[in-house]
Amino acid sequence: MHPLKVEQPYPYEQWWVAAYSAEIGRTIAARTILGMPLILYRTEAGEAVALSGICPHRSFPLDQGCLVGDSVRCGYHGFTFAASGECVEVPSQSGVPTHSALRRYPVAERGDLIWIWTGSEETADPALLPDIESMGPGNPGWTVEQHPPATIAARYTLLIDNLLDLSHASFIHSDTIPAGEKVAALPVELIETEKSLNVRRLGCNLPPNPFFRLMFPDHDGPIDQSFDAEYFGPHLIRTGGALHASATGERLGTQNYIHLITPETPTTLRYFVVTARDFGADNAALGRLHLDMGTRIQPQDQAAIESIEKVLQTLAPHPREVSARVDTGALKVRKRLTDQIVAEQRARREPAAA
Amino acid sequence: MHPLKVEQPYPYEQWWVAAYSAEIGRTIAARTILGMPLILYRTEAGEAVALSGICPHRSFPLDQGCLVGDSVRCGYHGFTFAASGECVEVPSQSGVPTHSALRRYPVAERGDLIWIWTGSEETADPALLPDIESMGPGNPGWTVEQHPPATIAARYTLLIDNLLDLSHASFIHSDTIPAGEKVAALPVELIETEKSLNVRRLGCNLPPNPFFRLMFPDHDGPIDQSFDAEYFGPHLIRTGGALHASATGERLGTQNYIHLITPETPTTLRYFVVTARDFGADNAALGRLHLDMGTRIQPQDQAAIESIEKVLQTLAPHPREVSARVDTGALKVRKRLTDQIVAEQRARREPAAA
Amino acid sequence: MHPLKVEQPYPYEQWWVAAYSAEIGRTIAARTILGMPLILYRTEAGEAVALSGICPHRSFPLDQGCLVGDSVRCGYHGFTFAASGECVEVPSQSGVPTHSALRRYPVAERGDLIWIWTGSEETADPALLPDIESMGPGNPGWTVEQHPPATIAARYTLLIDNLLDLSHASFIHSDTIPAGEKVAALPVELIETEKSLNVRRLGCNLPPNPFFRLMFPDHDGPIDQSFDAEYFGPHLIRTGGALHASATGERLGTQNYIHLITPETPTTLRYFVVTARDFGADNAALGRLHLDMGTRIQPQDQAAIESIEKVLQTLAPHPREVSARVDTGALKVRKRLTDQIVAEQRARREPAAA
Repeated sequence: MHPLKVEQPYPYEQWWVAAYSAEIGRTIAARTILGMPLILYRTEAGEAVALSGICPHRSFPLDQGCLVGDSVRCGYHGFTFAASGECVEVPSQSGVPTHSALRRYPVAERGDLIWIWTGSEETADPALLPDIESMGPGNPGWTVEQHPPATIAARYTLLIDNLLDLSHASFIHSDTIPAGEKVAALPVELIETEKSLNVRRLGCNLPPNPFFRLMFPDHDGPIDQSFDAEYFGPHLIRTGGALHASATGERLGTQNYIHLITPETPTTLRYFVVTARDFGADNAALGRLHLDMGTRIQPQDQAAIESIEKVLQTLAPHPREVSARVDTGALKVRKRLTDQIVAEQRARREPAAA
Repeated sequence: MHPLKVEQPYPYEQWWVAAYSAEIGRTIAARTILGMPLILYRTEAGEAVALSGICPHRSFPLDQGCLVGDSVRCGYHGFTFAASGECVEVPSQSGVPTHSALRRYPVAERGDLIWIWTGSEETADPALLPDIESMGPGNPGWTVEQHPPATIAARYTLLIDNLLDLSHASFIHSDTIPAGEKVAALPVELIETEKSLNVRRLGCNLPPNPFFRLMFPDHDGPIDQSFDAEYFGPHLIRTGGALHASATGERLGTQNYIHLITPETPTTLRYFVVTARDFGADNAALGRLHLDMGTRIQPQDQAAIESIEKVLQTLAPHPREVSARVDTGALKVRKRLTDQIVAEQRARREPAAA
Repeated sequence: MHPLKVEQPYPYEQWWVAAYSAEIGRTIAARTILGMPLILYRTEAGEAVALSGICPHRSFPLDQGCLVGDSVRCGYHGFTFAASGECVEVPSQSGVPTHSALRRYPVAERGDLIWIWTGSEETADPALLPDIESMGPGNPGWTVEQHPPATIAARYTLLIDNLLDLSHASFIHSDTIPAGEKVAALPVELIETEKSLNVRRLGCNLPPNPFFRLMFPDHDGPIDQSFDAEYFGPHLIRTGGALHASATGERLGTQNYIHLITPETPTTLRYFVVTARDFGADNAALGRLHLDMGTRIQPQDQAAIESIEKVLQTLAPHPREVSARVDTGALKVRKRLTDQIVAEQRARREPAAA
């Protein structure tokens, strides 16, 4: 199956990261998620709110309005909406028109991430949020860095493709990821559960390098490093993994790279990278190094998938595609995603008797 | 009814302002009106001429050519056209090809405005021109300022919507229109005639302010101000109105804001604002103030409707629309315009027996 | 017939100039030809190679990869392709997937021009290459200048139209082509052979001018100059021609302007101009003058046809077209090109029994 076509783009019954917690405050922020313009802000009590971003009166963008207490006032004719989405004031009249409420999107805040649910409100279940604490964010035992978010001019499936085939590290990241040049040659193990699909490569007996020494100053010998690419859904892919002393098998620590992907439009996405480790909590240099490496690695991925997006937009029909054996995991992920979208579409056409 | 769709955009049997008189002279000016490229210039005798802007030979834009007497010579192969549109010379041959005339658009010049008729030539009737003198332009009893024209990236119906609901003055112009913050709360009166539809708000007992004092230096007390929004057609909306002394009912004067709207393409329009007053003729500071206020007010309207245009172009289907009671006038105007377009389309399909 | 529609744009069974010889070396160059992205480079032995420019693995542009000997390695996951197009390495596995070869385009190098064949490989016949030596390039008796290539934002048929009606020289080149202002008035002779169609104008008794004096310092009197516009195919038009002494009929020399046209996309083309003369070989000032004139003449043609392209893209349906008698040659050329495209399409639908 080819990267999902632009015409059939997203699953909606899904939590997505809308923003880092620190991005949202007492001013109105505009975001586009799954093609839907919306606004984000916090109530006076600090609760994050996500509402449709377009005034139903004359389609004015609400992020050009202002907050009045916990409400949003449109900047064009003053229609005012409570945090529930309900229209509470129309300045030129008493009372409000019927059907004038804004859509409100369910919000959950976990691990310094603001998640929103783009499906129907009844199906919004916090239990469907990914277990992000187990990867680090929101877990006091871990040290976490949030990298600056980026908007990438590519369909979101291209970033999923990118992350699921880490053999690209040997080529586009050969100068930015330590030991990256070795990844392509490593054998691949596929670990499939209902919750995730992990394409695991194990680098054994990797010789000491400056990066390892900074991570584990007390360890001297070669290291076994897990290069995972674990798909939890279109919203979340974890790479990285555990590192062990090759000689003793002792676990030295786990270094996760958490990739949070949010489709903006059919051909753009918002990309959040969070790095997390359960070792070296007092090692500030390690945090700085991660953030600095991010400024070099992420633009390489961005440039690569933006190049492909341009090809896909220019060439019709799309170029044929051949796959390597190592792509089995990525192809299974594409199938998971397609199945999710198709199941949703079927459910919309044939709602369950309830 | 939603703002007119892009696919069904304009009435053609209509006069439109193509330019201020001073914009057109002895060089060729290019304009796009209702999607049609055309050229404007003056003959040696000073008469304004409007012709199709594309050479019928090889589709070269004629504004890149030059004037030869009263004729236009194409800059590519020298085809030359008289002010009547007739092809009068083809340099490579004697005689001219058949069917080589340019379309000529009827022109009328009134009130320092150049009007063109975009319908069929037989129906071009100067009696259908708006009575612009009664609003000020071309009337020696009035003082008139022409504001710089602007191209706005929005379908022209969004500007009509904007002007017909002046409650926006309380929000987007709260910092630029004196007493604008009061407009939204004023009651609305609808005055419908065959010729126009006026959404009138009356501001009573408005306290003195610096703007009033500049307008009427001899008057001291509160003022009753009419905030009209009078639609004469898609080409012309008058706002403003008469001002009276609240105490005595004496008319102090009339201040009109004349909005001349010309669709350029389905998603752009040309906007001319003319201010006119029948008082304070020797008060140059008042004229300067009007022009200066225009440089702050018009960009606010432009930004607002360009924001909405972007929303309409991005979101398909268009967002639903709810209306306030105060929108009754604007909705009736939309209906007038739709009726005009539909009647034209019907007339084209079933021409009257003649 | 109107300029070929964007929807039916090119003949494929055709040689086209992909680049000047000097443009291609031991780095990968990207070109788009007839809508197809491709890469060009030279093998270690110096042979020019043209391959499809998109990796069949994940559609990454191959010009972002690198050369490894005579092979191309993709910059994303390292798929590697020989100069034959065959996939020879996939780093993550032994062996390569089936159907993983790149399309290879037949290449011929003549007259310091790299020609590629965009039709099927079996029909690529060097005998179908134009006899470029007879016009100068690659012929030791001639002095040749290659002008910098330009990308023009216009459908390629507009440049053919432009060159086939040299009466435009009297208008858009009136300030840049010596005696150009006289061209429009010259009578036209049409010389049609199977190989070419030549629209010839003969300028008789042209008085001496500085350009003639620089060309033929030993000649003093008036000159008869041939203004040819000879179409050999959509890839090649020759203008210029022989110059004779008016008094004696003695041939003074031939000055050719060779226009090499390569469609890039439906609305862009690549334009190579080569000037060639069989006289004044030691006259470096003449070469410099030609190159300098090119920097002024070609932008004029470019601006003209880009203006028309914008008109054609903006106006639907296209403006009607009237032709002058002098356009007979250009119209016959349009018919030749249409016939070529239609014949190809028919041949694709009904392949000959072989």
